[in-house]
Amino acid sequence: MENGVTHIILDLFLVLAAARLAGELFERLRQPAVLGEIAAGIVLGPLLLGWLETTELLTALAEVGVIFLLFTVGLHTRVSDVTRVGQTAIAVGVLGAIVPLALGWAIMALLGSATLESVFVGVAMMATSVGITARVLADLGVLSRQASQVIIGAAVIDDIVGLLALAVLSGLVEGGVSYLALAITAAEAIAFVAFVMLVGRRAAERFCAVAQKMWTRNPSFIGPILVCLGLSFLAEYVGLAAIIGAFLAGMVFAETERCVKLHDAVEPLYDLFVPFFFVMIGVRVTPGAVTESVALIALVITAAAILSKLLACRYAARGLASREAWIVGVGMSPRGEVGLVVASIGLTRGVIGPDIYAVVVLMSLLTTFFAPPVLRRLIGTRPPAAAPTPEAPHPPPW
Amino acid sequence: MENGVTHIILDLFLVLAAARLAGELFERLRQPAVLGEIAAGIVLGPLLLGWLETTELLTALAEVGVIFLLFTVGLHTRVSDVTRVGQTAIAVGVLGAIVPLALGWAIMALLGSATLESVFVGVAMMATSVGITARVLADLGVLSRQASQVIIGAAVIDDIVGLLALAVLSGLVEGGVSYLALAITAAEAIAFVAFVMLVGRRAAERFCAVAQKMWTRNPSFIGPILVCLGLSFLAEYVGLAAIIGAFLAGMVFAETERCVKLHDAVEPLYDLFVPFFFVMIGVRVTPGAVTESVALIALVITAAAILSKLLACRYAARGLASREAWIVGVGMSPRGEVGLVVASIGLTRGVIGPDIYAVVVLMSLLTTFFAPPVLRRLIGTRPPAAAPTPEAPHPPPW
Repeated sequence: MENGVTHIILDLFLVLAAARLAGELFERLRQPAVLGEIAAGIVLGPLLLGWLETTELLTALAEVGVIFLLFTVGLHTRVSDVTRVGQTAIAVGVLGAIVPLALGWAIMALLGSATLESVFVGVAMMATSVGITARVLADLGVLSRQASQVIIGAAVIDDIVGLLALAVLSGLVEGGVSYLALAITAAEAIAFVAFVMLVGRRAAERFCAVAQKMWTRNPSFIGPILVCLGLSFLAEYVGLAAIIGAFLAGMVFAETERCVKLHDAVEPLYDLFVPFFFVMIGVRVTPGAVTESVALIALVITAAAILSKLLACRYAARGLASREAWIVGVGMSPRGEVGLVVASIGLTRGVIGPDIYAVVVLMSLLTTFFAPPVLRRLIGTRPPAAAPTPEAPHPPPW
Repeated sequence: MENGVTHIILDLFLVLAAARLAGELFERLRQPAVLGEIAAGIVLGPLLLGWLETTELLTALAEVGVIFLLFTVGLHTRVSDVTRVGQTAIAVGVLGAIVPLALGWAIMALLGSATLESVFVGVAMMATSVGITARVLADLGVLSRQASQVIIGAAVIDDIVGLLALAVLSGLVEGGVSYLALAITAAEAIAFVAFVMLVGRRAAERFCAVAQKMWTRNPSFIGPILVCLGLSFLAEYVGLAAIIGAFLAGMVFAETERCVKLHDAVEPLYDLFVPFFFVMIGVRVTPGAVTESVALIALVITAAAILSKLLACRYAARGLASREAWIVGVGMSPRGEVGLVVASIGLTRGVIGPDIYAVVVLMSLLTTFFAPPVLRRLIGTRPPAAAPTPEAPHPPPW
């Protein structure tokens, strides 16, 4: 057929195969597969082999990938999970978001960066990657441990805080420094989130009840997917990031018992699309960006990101036993996808240059590399991830 | 975010929502959902509303959609299914492919079309849509009836015959009328198909055994998907259509018991991607294509397509009881996706113009409209598709 079609199939094959092989390699080195996927992107991208570049199709698939990632995270996030661990999680989430923001902002300002650029770095340091953290905890088999529940609750809270900060920042970028525009963006963002959270669960129940009466196949799968895409679009429309809509859509359906098997049906989409997001993160690391000064700033920012999150969260969790509080601190430190999303947005809008983008990507990678081995030592209950028995039920995606 | 992302999400939402709503409407009118999806494309496309156009992304998703459609068809096609109903199915399949080819070719030649164009129309008339036929039979609950088994076996055979004819035709288009190139293409095509069918099953067993030992999540889902994409690419590489590779990949894994749950995992991909193929079929119907003379030719070609398939298959199935033989004839008549694929290929390569493309699309639509009500009358065992009970196990995709 025409070359376009051949290229499409080859690109898809290349991304999925490389992501899977690199993920497998990293898992066997006791590192999260997601790091392997980013590494695969760096290797296949313009920085090294040059086999992949930022095409319209791959960008679109990466966007759909991050939407389904946050949808899946939302699907596993019940409002009750967030509230049950209560005050500790809230303290950890809020303090663990604000301290890194302040520290990152201050450091970049001291290094002479522009205000917006400094704030971008701070915002990228705010949010824990709930995906990476919880997946590591699941691999270690300690999801029901007290520290784990605090981490997941807090990670969700600081995800929301971080995403709201991102929305405020987006308003800031688009509307200049108008405080009115800022207030409107914040109000819109909060109103959107509040509306979906308040109305969402009942609407989802009704929605699934209607879907069940449809004659076409699998309506209780495609219905929620449409809600996910619809809320993602609406989130963009009111100035928020699409992933906020996707996350809320997931959370809305998390407690709906009528749309059965939704978790199972979304898994293949997760497996198929999410790697595109992480591989493209690597592909976007352009040649020449990692100069000596970039590496130096990246190390400073990484140290600040780890220490600020670790100490702020450990302090906020001081009500727990000492070891548990340290587990919380370490477990909150990987940044992963949210930091990377902030960096991508900053780069595509021209607010941060390729050098600061590389700093944030390195910070996200290094903080994510840091946590798993330390967590394993602190928890130390059982040997990490023995090879799973064939076709044993897989752990949830994190 | 940037407009590109908003547009991507909106396009995806629009295609999926329109396809689902139109599909639901058509199902309630006792017509296959797939016709609703094509109709949705015609309505949303440049012919009427103009909300959708042929973008790079939508073209790519349509291509992935048809790949997953044929992969799914292959997954439900065991070699033993094809051979069990034996000689009758082979006779029905072969005769039901050759007679429409000859009649379509002859009619178009008599109407003054160029040779290649005439052959394209004939080839588009060859293959029964195994998807549409078997889905209708499943909806009527008669998949185990003797006539149904003959239809499915024969439809698979004439699919393969049709796909091979398409490969030969592709070689013809690319290499001119060189008989050597034709022979090489045919030999390559047959060698590729034979190699995959001979080596495929054992290779798939080994492949799944290796995949099970991987640590990353759901390897026995993503592995076969990679094989599907890989064989699709290889099929293109040797001059065949990508869908032949996808179909063979599916058939290779159909009898592999090690890659469990593959059918379930592929369903969401089917639901998500396949509508793009059918909606884009409708979107590609350009304004002005359906002139009076196009409509007239389309009616002649449609009548020829129905009568040639119906009578050839009824004759080939004369060993069965009379009513069963008629069921076979009618059941073989819908053309659906394979005819549409041939038409798309002819259009994108410039071998057929938009007028003949419209003729083939109308023929595919009309033959597909014709079969379900007539089949229902002939079979008449139970009232068609009562509203399914909530979350009852859905029938397979056809």
